Amino acid sequence: MAVTDIATRAYNHNFRLDPIVRSLLDTDFYKLLMLQMIWREHADVRATFSLINRSQTVRLADIIDEEELRTQLDYARTLRFTNKELIWLAGNSFYGKQQMFKPDFMAWLADFRLPEYELRKADGQYELHFDGPWTHTTMWEIPALAIINELRSRASLQNKGRFALDVLYARAKAKLWEKVERLRAFPDLVISDFGTRRRHGFLWQRWCVEALKEGLGERFIGTSNVLLAMDADLEAIGTNAHELPMVEAALSDNDAELAEAPYRVLEEWRQHYGGNLLIALPDAYGTAAFLEHAPSWLANWTGFRPDSAPPVEAGEQIMRWWEEQGRDPKQKLLIFSDGLDVDTIERIYHHFHGRVRMSFGWGTNLTNDFRDCEPDGEAGLEPISLVCKVTEANGRPAVKLSDNPAKATGDPQEIARYLRIFGETGHVLSPLSV
Amino acid sequence: MAVTDIATRAYNHNFRLDPIVRSLLDTDFYKLLMLQMIWREHADVRATFSLINRSQTVRLADIIDEEELRTQLDYARTLRFTNKELIWLAGNSFYGKQQMFKPDFMAWLADFRLPEYELRKADGQYELHFDGPWTHTTMWEIPALAIINELRSRASLQNKGRFALDVLYARAKAKLWEKVERLRAFPDLVISDFGTRRRHGFLWQRWCVEALKEGLGERFIGTSNVLLAMDADLEAIGTNAHELPMVEAALSDNDAELAEAPYRVLEEWRQHYGGNLLIALPDAYGTAAFLEHAPSWLANWTGFRPDSAPPVEAGEQIMRWWEEQGRDPKQKLLIFSDGLDVDTIERIYHHFHGRVRMSFGWGTNLTNDFRDCEPDGEAGLEPISLVCKVTEANGRPAVKLSDNPAKATGDPQEIARYLRIFGETGHVLSPLSV
Repeated sequence: MAVTDIATRAYNHNFRLDPIVRSLLDTDFYKLLMLQMIWREHADVRATFSLINRSQTVRLADIIDEEELRTQLDYARTLRFTNKELIWLAGNSFYGKQQMFKPDFMAWLADFRLPEYELRKADGQYELHFDGPWTHTTMWEIPALAIINELRSRASLQNKGRFALDVLYARAKAKLWEKVERLRAFPDLVISDFGTRRRHGFLWQRWCVEALKEGLGERFIGTSNVLLAMDADLEAIGTNAHELPMVEAALSDNDAELAEAPYRVLEEWRQHYGGNLLIALPDAYGTAAFLEHAPSWLANWTGFRPDSAPPVEAGEQIMRWWEEQGRDPKQKLLIFSDGLDVDTIERIYHHFHGRVRMSFGWGTNLTNDFRDCEPDGEAGLEPISLVCKVTEANGRPAVKLSDNPAKATGDPQEIARYLRIFGETGHVLSPLSV
Repeated sequence: MAVTDIATRAYNHNFRLDPIVRSLLDTDFYKLLMLQMIWREHADVRATFSLINRSQTVRLADIIDEEELRTQLDYARTLRFTNKELIWLAGNSFYGKQQMFKPDFMAWLADFRLPEYELRKADGQYELHFDGPWTHTTMWEIPALAIINELRSRASLQNKGRFALDVLYARAKAKLWEKVERLRAFPDLVISDFGTRRRHGFLWQRWCVEALKEGLGERFIGTSNVLLAMDADLEAIGTNAHELPMVEAALSDNDAELAEAPYRVLEEWRQHYGGNLLIALPDAYGTAAFLEHAPSWLANWTGFRPDSAPPVEAGEQIMRWWEEQGRDPKQKLLIFSDGLDVDTIERIYHHFHGRVRMSFGWGTNLTNDFRDCEPDGEAGLEPISLVCKVTEANGRPAVKLSDNPAKATGDPQEIARYLRIFGETGHVLSPLSV
């Protein structure tokens, strides 16, 4: 008995747009945590976010149709938080805490919409800028990246047959499940999905997240994607990102203030959040420099999220710092989230097992690994190193150095100034995979 | 917009049975061709068909619930050819010929239903017999096999999670597609689906057939499954099977008549069918013996379907025979259909390419290859060597020798008599894979 739903069919006939971002919750959880703090502390700051394609050989403007991109961005701008979403945000507990988002912030959120964007083509790439109050432009980062990545996926799948497509996804499923089977070997693994921004597509991310939920059981602690956390009844995972020290640094009036910026941000963070949200991101201007001048109260925090440095070295460095501060690393948490895949997760897991608590935020290689899945062997599905970074705050250039010079962003003269102030200890150039 | 079809949902709530065989067309095309001849020439013959599980270590009665099996068999007995099906059979052209099925036969078919069955358990196996007019019992072969094979698949999938199941099929799809990609390398390949009887399940066979249609294009000439041929607008493929010489042999009154039986059957066949349906199956009592005494008019036929003998040797033997008869093998057709997979297809293709026309009937390894696809590595999905053979005709034992003694069926004393008459030249014992 094949009953055709006539309404669905009629709707499909009228099909005009398959929106990529369909909810303002389809973003990373840390965006909302940061937003609440930005809204309360820095409502007057203007910040520009800009798209940066570090994979220059992939000429996005030749692949993605400009009209389609505008239509998707415009559609995202029509979105509001729905009542259900607001009630869930207000009523759900996050990281074991009720009322993470305060009523006045929730009231403000109810009117939120994504601000305007500036888009133009240059040299086969898109120049995409979001300029406006930091409280608004910050919210473009994840949807903008998700839209561009998914439009690129769609473009590369455009002329495939029905079964070629079916087999493509079949292969990707089999591939992911092999990873799940390998990860199952680690009974006390703690892992979550961090793959929203670089995902192949929303539906694929959802499949991956639900597959991990079934396949990894307790090892899978949740997802950074707020919408998927709500829909799949998972924990929303995330803390804070580089944009906080970057804006704080950009707003510094002199070199001394700049040197203190990474710690001022954390000072502010601990006014708003506690417990397992007290995770420091040490690499904005180099992990070594950060730890060298870190205040002793930071040793009370739950842990660190080493990001751009080689993970084993960065972890060891942080553990040494805890020991110097008289803390037992076994009580502390390291969150790894930079370009992870099963091999690196295994290596890190074995290296640190029993010496420190660990958690893994698995991103691009979870939600966008179609390598060798293309039946016809065509290119276009390999993930690219696309980011959307804050480039200016109140008209001043924003800079990120990171532990890997390949990840540095900002005006070269400013980068030079920052390098003078923070030093280059421990900076290691590594090729960017994702 | 996720519109739920309420009627479908309500139907699912009332779900009692997921029938395996839902149409009398869900059978092999040669069954209908043979049936028309049996109906016209042997309407008075009684024939018993019996299930034979040559994979004795697989205890089917421990795996498949008897009630479920009875329910499926009973459901199949409720089926009639529908008007649409009858109209299509009458109106479609098969092998380029209109009205393959004559009006009087079609009128008879309109009332057809599957006859009763006898089922009991013994030693962990099912004894399943179909006794009655040959015109009716013959039609049980394919649905009975399809039902048992699919019930076994369902049993082994019973306790799997949603994503484990999804990945299982994903792997099987990827596996099949790799075969498709390899087969694409042969531009003048001619291949069809012969996998109904041993299929993993109906929906899986449908996927495989439609995938081959997309993936192999012109190389894929059709399917032996009449229902899928109708639904997917493919050619229905098939000619005749061992039951014809087996019954003819069983009905022989003396050794001299028995020795002639294999040729009498073909004599009869050519009264009914012509062109590309003139394909001889030479191995019922040994290919060597068959060719040694074959009448010269058989050299006018389109080709042979060597079955139980090693394919290269059997093909060479048949080609020698054509040459002895003064015919050019390049004008003749060899149809290979015994336990094929891509490796064997490639080997046979390369061996005979340019020397004879070839066609491949791909069965079990097309529609039931889940080896290494089980996420949890459990057994139960490997195909088994299950057949449903004619065992008696008008109360006399039926015998098949074939070129491979492992495939011989029948009463041991009768087998000895047949061996005395036909000889054992060229009989080679080979392990049965499927």
